[in-house]
Amino acid sequence: MANFSPLIDELIEALRCLPGVGPKSAQRMSFQLLERNRGGAERLANALQRAVDQVGHCRSCRTLTEHEECRICSDSRRDSSTICVVESPADVLAFEQGGDYRGLYFVLMGHLSPIDGIGPEELGVDRLLERVKTLSVQELILATNPTVEGEATAFYLAEEMRRLGVSVSRIAHGVPLGGELEYVDSGTLAHALKGRQRFE
Amino acid sequence: MANFSPLIDELIEALRCLPGVGPKSAQRMSFQLLERNRGGAERLANALQRAVDQVGHCRSCRTLTEHEECRICSDSRRDSSTICVVESPADVLAFEQGGDYRGLYFVLMGHLSPIDGIGPEELGVDRLLERVKTLSVQELILATNPTVEGEATAFYLAEEMRRLGVSVSRIAHGVPLGGELEYVDSGTLAHALKGRQRFE
Repeated sequence: MANFSPLIDELIEALRCLPGVGPKSAQRMSFQLLERNRGGAERLANALQRAVDQVGHCRSCRTLTEHEECRICSDSRRDSSTICVVESPADVLAFEQGGDYRGLYFVLMGHLSPIDGIGPEELGVDRLLERVKTLSVQELILATNPTVEGEATAFYLAEEMRRLGVSVSRIAHGVPLGGELEYVDSGTLAHALKGRQRFE
Repeated sequence: MANFSPLIDELIEALRCLPGVGPKSAQRMSFQLLERNRGGAERLANALQRAVDQVGHCRSCRTLTEHEECRICSDSRRDSSTICVVESPADVLAFEQGGDYRGLYFVLMGHLSPIDGIGPEELGVDRLLERVKTLSVQELILATNPTVEGEATAFYLAEEMRRLGVSVSRIAHGVPLGGELEYVDSGTLAHALKGRQRFE
């Protein structure tokens, strides 16, 4: 890939660090920016640099933030007796968009994955345990992804929490609203059946 | 879209200037970069800034380059009696990857589009005419895209060149190699029929 001028080749190569961007898209992006949107390219360069320099992890919940403590953790109106454990900051946003949850979060920034060397330490489980004790948390909601790794992580955390005598729950898995049964995979259907509740 | 911390929101917004990147992809890209690839993000910020600062147009063929004259125009081994006119720098690369063409290029950086205020001046047609005269070009190959605008641009340039007495050709349109006839659109098939050549 040494076909345009060096700087353009470098830009194309650099754009490929974005997830889902292959050589052709990177090329298209480079030309689009250089031909039609240099202002946007400059803003993007700035935003990237500032985010890399300033964004770190919230000291309480580990989500990404440029402050010491994130907006949710520093909001005194949130119910600190409940912590919802998620895998990524995007999951926090998903719950917040629902608007029903008023407790706090803890962001693992991943899931247990021994092959990749990601154990409890990398997920900040120590900090979670400490937090549960400090805040006298009543309930820990496990909202890791319904994948093999997510389930394993949930299982591990549940064990740890039971030792502390904290009540642990797992979000419900089942048929999504608006979904049609015939298109739902069998694993989800099995979960939906197993988790059925009395119709009242 | 003011849901994460301001810097992260800004980064997500800035990423949307990339073609084909919507709010969800921009969010995923931001987290991916901040969680797992800060080095890549920094390289990208740098590459963008340097490209915006230094990349301009080749004074001879108008393609994007950080030099006064691009690699191809400054290569004395190229045949300066032929100029291939294309719409974008990516088209130059496409021809170069074929490897058969040894002449020069002229990059219009677009096509005639009166509605968008893009006329001959914006496409640098003056410079093309001047170049054709200076280099005593024998043949001008029109390789604009086979779209309505590309055809109109080719037609316009052909008229201009005929006035100068320069021979003008248009690249062939037809069934692509490896294509199956049943999946080829009717316009292309009509072109392929019209442009048929004696089988020898």
